[in-house]
Amino acid sequence: MNVLLNETHDPELTSWLVSANRAGQDFPIQNLPFAVFRRAGSDESYRGGVAIGDRIVDLAALAAAGVFEGEAAVALAACAAPALNDFMALGQRAWSALRLSLSRALREGSPMADLVKPCLVPQSDAEFALPARIGDYTDFYASIHHATNVGKLFRPDNPLLPNYKWVPIGYHGRASSIGVSGQRFLRPCGQTMAPGAEHPSFGPSQRLDYEMEVGIFIGQGNPLGSHIALDRAEQHVFGLCLLNDWSARDIQAWEYQPLGPFLAKNFATTISPWIVTLEALAPFRVEWTRPVEDPQPLPYLASATLRREGAFDIQLEVWLQTERMQREGQAETRLSHTSFRHAYWSVSQMVTHHTVNGCGLQPGDLLGSGTMSGPAADEAGSLLELSAGGKQPLVLANGEERRFLQDGDTVTMRGYCERAGAARIGFGAAVGQVLPAGDRGSADA
Amino acid sequence: MNVLLNETHDPELTSWLVSANRAGQDFPIQNLPFAVFRRAGSDESYRGGVAIGDRIVDLAALAAAGVFEGEAAVALAACAAPALNDFMALGQRAWSALRLSLSRALREGSPMADLVKPCLVPQSDAEFALPARIGDYTDFYASIHHATNVGKLFRPDNPLLPNYKWVPIGYHGRASSIGVSGQRFLRPCGQTMAPGAEHPSFGPSQRLDYEMEVGIFIGQGNPLGSHIALDRAEQHVFGLCLLNDWSARDIQAWEYQPLGPFLAKNFATTISPWIVTLEALAPFRVEWTRPVEDPQPLPYLASATLRREGAFDIQLEVWLQTERMQREGQAETRLSHTSFRHAYWSVSQMVTHHTVNGCGLQPGDLLGSGTMSGPAADEAGSLLELSAGGKQPLVLANGEERRFLQDGDTVTMRGYCERAGAARIGFGAAVGQVLPAGDRGSADA
Repeated sequence: MNVLLNETHDPELTSWLVSANRAGQDFPIQNLPFAVFRRAGSDESYRGGVAIGDRIVDLAALAAAGVFEGEAAVALAACAAPALNDFMALGQRAWSALRLSLSRALREGSPMADLVKPCLVPQSDAEFALPARIGDYTDFYASIHHATNVGKLFRPDNPLLPNYKWVPIGYHGRASSIGVSGQRFLRPCGQTMAPGAEHPSFGPSQRLDYEMEVGIFIGQGNPLGSHIALDRAEQHVFGLCLLNDWSARDIQAWEYQPLGPFLAKNFATTISPWIVTLEALAPFRVEWTRPVEDPQPLPYLASATLRREGAFDIQLEVWLQTERMQREGQAETRLSHTSFRHAYWSVSQMVTHHTVNGCGLQPGDLLGSGTMSGPAADEAGSLLELSAGGKQPLVLANGEERRFLQDGDTVTMRGYCERAGAARIGFGAAVGQVLPAGDRGSADA
Repeated sequence: MNVLLNETHDPELTSWLVSANRAGQDFPIQNLPFAVFRRAGSDESYRGGVAIGDRIVDLAALAAAGVFEGEAAVALAACAAPALNDFMALGQRAWSALRLSLSRALREGSPMADLVKPCLVPQSDAEFALPARIGDYTDFYASIHHATNVGKLFRPDNPLLPNYKWVPIGYHGRASSIGVSGQRFLRPCGQTMAPGAEHPSFGPSQRLDYEMEVGIFIGQGNPLGSHIALDRAEQHVFGLCLLNDWSARDIQAWEYQPLGPFLAKNFATTISPWIVTLEALAPFRVEWTRPVEDPQPLPYLASATLRREGAFDIQLEVWLQTERMQREGQAETRLSHTSFRHAYWSVSQMVTHHTVNGCGLQPGDLLGSGTMSGPAADEAGSLLELSAGGKQPLVLANGEERRFLQDGDTVTMRGYCERAGAARIGFGAAVGQVLPAGDRGSADA
């Protein structure tokens, strides 16, 4: 076993909760991801929860039951809050202590089973909130395949900008419009400049898109003026989630020079409710590599640890269900599939680069990886790429076509890790739906 | 009198506090700006305060004294908190009610003088915190002179991008590194690409700059999915402050394509402690105009009210004191001076544009105007412009030269409004100092 693995990763572990042991589901006892939830439609307080099979361990109830001791009990108490920021701030030892105690309590034969059972809530009864108060949200651009695909649409001869292979490109996003899975939002309106037009026009975006990303939640932060060294960077990461960076391509094309995307992105961003910890992902670490012909990173972005195990092999999928499919009872259809392992910049490199100028990160800050596209054409993480900039429509199984998203479209992102000799680790889903622009109203009406 | 003016604007008003009546100072009874403060070095709670002359009215103490009634009392109670977000959320009627009550209580002859006097704290004894929890920070680019000056450095023949006259360009900044006046920060390190170099290098920025901006604090927000119409936009603005958007030009030049500035900006942003309300600024409203040869704004960004009184004539100044000047007891020197009236996009246009896609603003959100440069060369709001991209050094009074900022430099921004027939309204100052990069440390050392 890898030194990063411990008893919580043992693929032979099973739970006394039968649904946790079913093959192919997302939440076996080796996963134990965190969310914030309450019973749907209730006026209960939101609190932390951990997924196990088809249930959620209510961490506030578990804390009240006084089941754990020591560092795990301290960590558990922090999870009773309506946001996980305080738990995230406790750091890796506390996260790990709670994971170990939960793993032991949920195992087949655990003497604690009868204490834990009353703290289980069916996932089907739950509604979720954002897992943390997100102080700042930063979006990176870590897939070279995406950067190249998009660059080709604008600069066929010179798709990749000169800085790409040196700088983990990132920019600040809008924290207040991030929503949890289930988010429904109005098609954004804005200025667009039609090809050949003399002046811009105003109206609903006609080129609305999704972007398949991995979200990175910061655990412990760093004070303003300090930096986080590469080999310590992952200790500052609480875990990963799925992220859909909805994008209005026509608004973006007109507004983005010279300061970057703004209204094209900040109307909605959807994340999955569950944060999978880096500890749970340890069996799916892979080498971080880069083509030998490419420049190797500057020293502050390079290390032996990075090269040995700096990437994560997380399968990422995008699914679409149109309004017609929903009406006619047809299942959603998969648009693309890739792996996070293809990211050109690692999680640790993004964290380290973000702080190298002294920028302070805070517990609960969210980083997006940028659109994750793989090397093959069908591994693209956006419609912009799949439809070649809107020129080649995708034909869906029911005959419908999509260049960009239509009103009523529901986009679902899924993620999971699978390999022989390890339990499957799932991320659940990040679901979002596009509503017609016409429903928008004035704040002062 | 303009319909926007009321008894609180009367230039004849004086206060029983003598220092408030001195000519040329920033805080006469017609101003009454808000901050969050406590006695320096104490462990008191931070709370709201209003500047009057050389004192601060301690709003928590005033609330405890129970001096006001009705809407003003409700507003005052909200100001006792360590951040003004709740007060900002109350809206214009509440802000105005409190302003009127404070104005009456502070006036010469007020029967409340003896109740208010024990609530005064000398400004010289105070330390300040950020006036609000800033959820999201957005920086605009509203000076066409700045955009043109900077554009000329990169594209002499085509300085202004085609979108500039149509779109109030903005981008998201980093909320967590915003500090209040007095902020000292380490010169940022980062990647830069020297002209003609084959690969980038890493080290302290050699082209560190300031940017003179106006900060705009949002009062009442708007729900995600709604928008704020132009003629209602100012009702969502609590007030204005001074803002220094420190910028590392060499890091910016290498990193900013295609997603905009990131590490070049997010290491520090300094604002003045005092927020001057729009009500206080009413006597300094001026027409919002645009050259007739320029395209006029799209309908959602145009109105008769905007044209009549949509701009503010606020004088803005940048002052520099080098380490040597400080050591030798020499006063700071003024580098430039302009007016906010030259902004190409108004406060209301920035707010409306920000929400036109459904983006939700929240109380305490901060917008920066972007660097404010006026039409003349000596009205430029950054060293990048004043030194023609670093090619023409500024020679200071003591013979020192500056192309960009040196370690130990202290930059002070000041703002004020003056005209015949109105009391002077001052903004105080936003002061910041550059410390050597060498002092930076690892977060995990």
